[in-house]
Amino acid sequence: MPTVRPAADAGLSPRAAAVFADIRATRGSDFVNNFWRSLAALDDALLERVWGQLKAVMAAPGTLDPVTREMIYIAVSVTNGCSYCVHSHTAAARAKGMTGAMEAELLSIIALASQTNALATALAVPVDAAFDASDGPP
Amino acid sequence: MPTVRPAADAGLSPRAAAVFADIRATRGSDFVNNFWRSLAALDDALLERVWGQLKAVMAAPGTLDPVTREMIYIAVSVTNGCSYCVHSHTAAARAKGMTGAMEAELLSIIALASQTNALATALAVPVDAAFDASDGPP
Amino acid sequence: MPTVRPAADAGLSPRAAAVFADIRATRGSDFVNNFWRSLAALDDALLERVWGQLKAVMAAPGTLDPVTREMIYIAVSVTNGCSYCVHSHTAAARAKGMTGAMEAELLSIIALASQTNALATALAVPVDAAFDASDGPP
Amino acid sequence: MPTVRPAADAGLSPRAAAVFADIRATRGSDFVNNFWRSLAALDDALLERVWGQLKAVMAAPGTLDPVTREMIYIAVSVTNGCSYCVHSHTAAARAKGMTGAMEAELLSIIALASQTNALATALAVPVDAAFDASDGPP
Amino acid sequence: MPTVRPAADAGLSPRAAAVFADIRATRGSDFVNNFWRSLAALDDALLERVWGQLKAVMAAPGTLDPVTREMIYIAVSVTNGCSYCVHSHTAAARAKGMTGAMEAELLSIIALASQTNALATALAVPVDAAFDASDGPP
Amino acid sequence: MPTVRPAADAGLSPRAAAVFADIRATRGSDFVNNFWRSLAALDDALLERVWGQLKAVMAAPGTLDPVTREMIYIAVSVTNGCSYCVHSHTAAARAKGMTGAMEAELLSIIALASQTNALATALAVPVDAAFDASDGPP
Repeated sequence: MPTVRPAADAGLSPRAAAVFADIRATRGSDFVNNFWRSLAALDDALLERVWGQLKAVMAAPGTLDPVTREMIYIAVSVTNGCSYCVHSHTAAARAKGMTGAMEAELLSIIALASQTNALATALAVPVDAAFDASDGPP
Repeated sequence: MPTVRPAADAGLSPRAAAVFADIRATRGSDFVNNFWRSLAALDDALLERVWGQLKAVMAAPGTLDPVTREMIYIAVSVTNGCSYCVHSHTAAARAKGMTGAMEAELLSIIALASQTNALATALAVPVDAAFDASDGPP
Repeated sequence: MPTVRPAADAGLSPRAAAVFADIRATRGSDFVNNFWRSLAALDDALLERVWGQLKAVMAAPGTLDPVTREMIYIAVSVTNGCSYCVHSHTAAARAKGMTGAMEAELLSIIALASQTNALATALAVPVDAAFDASDGPP
Repeated sequence: MPTVRPAADAGLSPRAAAVFADIRATRGSDFVNNFWRSLAALDDALLERVWGQLKAVMAAPGTLDPVTREMIYIAVSVTNGCSYCVHSHTAAARAKGMTGAMEAELLSIIALASQTNALATALAVPVDAAFDASDGPP
Repeated sequence: MPTVRPAADAGLSPRAAAVFADIRATRGSDFVNNFWRSLAALDDALLERVWGQLKAVMAAPGTLDPVTREMIYIAVSVTNGCSYCVHSHTAAARAKGMTGAMEAELLSIIALASQTNALATALAVPVDAAFDASDGPP
Repeated sequence: MPTVRPAADAGLSPRAAAVFADIRATRGSDFVNNFWRSLAALDDALLERVWGQLKAVMAAPGTLDPVTREMIYIAVSVTNGCSYCVHSHTAAARAKGMTGAMEAELLSIIALASQTNALATALAVPVDAAFDASDGPP
């Protein structure tokens, strides 16, 4: 039971229709999934802003390959307990080449980190001076 | 202020000392960070079990490279709000080759996913039939 | 599939029946939603305590108007990933006057905060001295 | 201990300097807090994107007043356990007019919702048919 | 850096002073920890309501012994990432008799559950029909 | 809709079949729930590792009785919002002797802790010096 009924193509505002067209062009597919349809049903400006950000982060050239990006997305979505996002990004990762072996490693790391996160919090482990990396990455 | 004072090398039980020796051998470094010292102070069996699992997941051969593994670990740790783990794995990822450009992309994906996770939950977006991937990865 | 079957009106204990009567009187409606019925099925004392607190916080006079209170409730429920609570409080907020424009702004803020929360945690941003507000609100 | 040292004004790239200038102009204050300085130290594009979104959501005209927006931001930040964000947005909300009475009501709602979220999850309360609001807000 | 400076005994309102007196009487100790002092600084009504609930849940007779209650409290606090609560309830549990062996088992369960929670969410495991316990506990 | 279809007994690898046999022997029941079937469908090594850890933590002799262990597991699972785990461990706890009174106390503590966790985070309560327990449990 959604809180807002996902919008069909018919009846979209011109602004939402333009976003849907860009989603289709960017992905090379006619399929527009319910996440965008729900945003379209709520608010054109939010739809446009979120899609713009997703396009900038996930579809633009960069140093991380598409499968790695999707696996990081899955890691966050699992930890946040977002069932829809787990489904959509697991499907996306597989479509982009995540094999069963990669998925098993991904879930093993998520499970391990969830465990050690809890332990570090329970023990209030003091941050080692050696981890002072405040000069940032190379 | 930790809830258990991290253990020094002196005074470790033989079982804990063996784990510390394996940490040093596996990593090729004399440094044992506070996470393991806190576990050692609490319980030998827990220390041994967690280290065994971390070694199996993070240090064993596999399909994901070491930097990718650390970035997934960071994604989970950030989402769980574990400050110690963010520090230790950001340092580890950088030591294993995460550049500033990679870190920027990683944080961009974490930020984006956090946002769309919240929206999908707020809208209770219904899972698309197209995402039925119950046959699993290829 | 609930873990406890929600209680019907028939068969309530006198203590639970009194709570249900107060819910109906406070809300001016005969409808008692499943949250209260599930608590009634588990424990009368817990039902009474939670309802008493909700009445004190949400139904008592105060400085925040009813729609604002419900929007804050939604913000917490979305972040905690509580699907039932998202549904019940979205319905309540709309019944109390939340328009589509307000809901779009609410979700935009929730999405934005989720994103900057993750970034601040990932970067371990030091709290600015200017934010020292320990004297509290005016 | 931050993971990236917040950037000083000296040495900013032109792109980051432009964002800082817009932050100052939008807020009518010379103060740029560490959140933006940390982003500037990591990545110009991310800084620009996050600021653009915050400006669009928090500083643009809309139906919710500035204090209400900040209180919703606080609700999310508390629930996500982001200490930096709790501090910065509590300071912002007070500066924009949140009184002690409003803050007490805000925290009372956050505490109540946290409690009922947990109970609804523990009981797996089935969503009432009456909450079917899939036609969305009026 | 707190967002509200914890209240000293001097200057408490009569209502807050009465709560502090009840805390001292209930616990048989003159010590009132900062959690209650922070609430007192913010709002008397919230202080009174939260203390009343804590007293009803943690200090009243029941089927669970005091150490078990504290361990459950720790499990929730660790999972929510509340550092203050982890410290205060770890101290309380130890004062009430939690041994090192019990603490090691507690943390082992928290770590294990954190791990399997993540895996069940990632795999979207369907609830077994055998777990239909909607008739509730015996 | 699972992301991986739970594995049936027929077609299991020898390694997975051995884990299933150990689950049946350890529990004295032929029933193997979907959590293990989903892991079996994804990866034998992960299945073996997680089961080994669960057996070591939940089925081994120790100081905490089986019902207490399950209640701690429920507390974590509720807080993480894992619906599957709430169902499976609520069923397990009841099978091991959790009465309705115990379940009501458990949920009361979970609800209370969720509430005070949020308040302590919102107020950024400073940890009392009296809670310095870094020498650890007795």
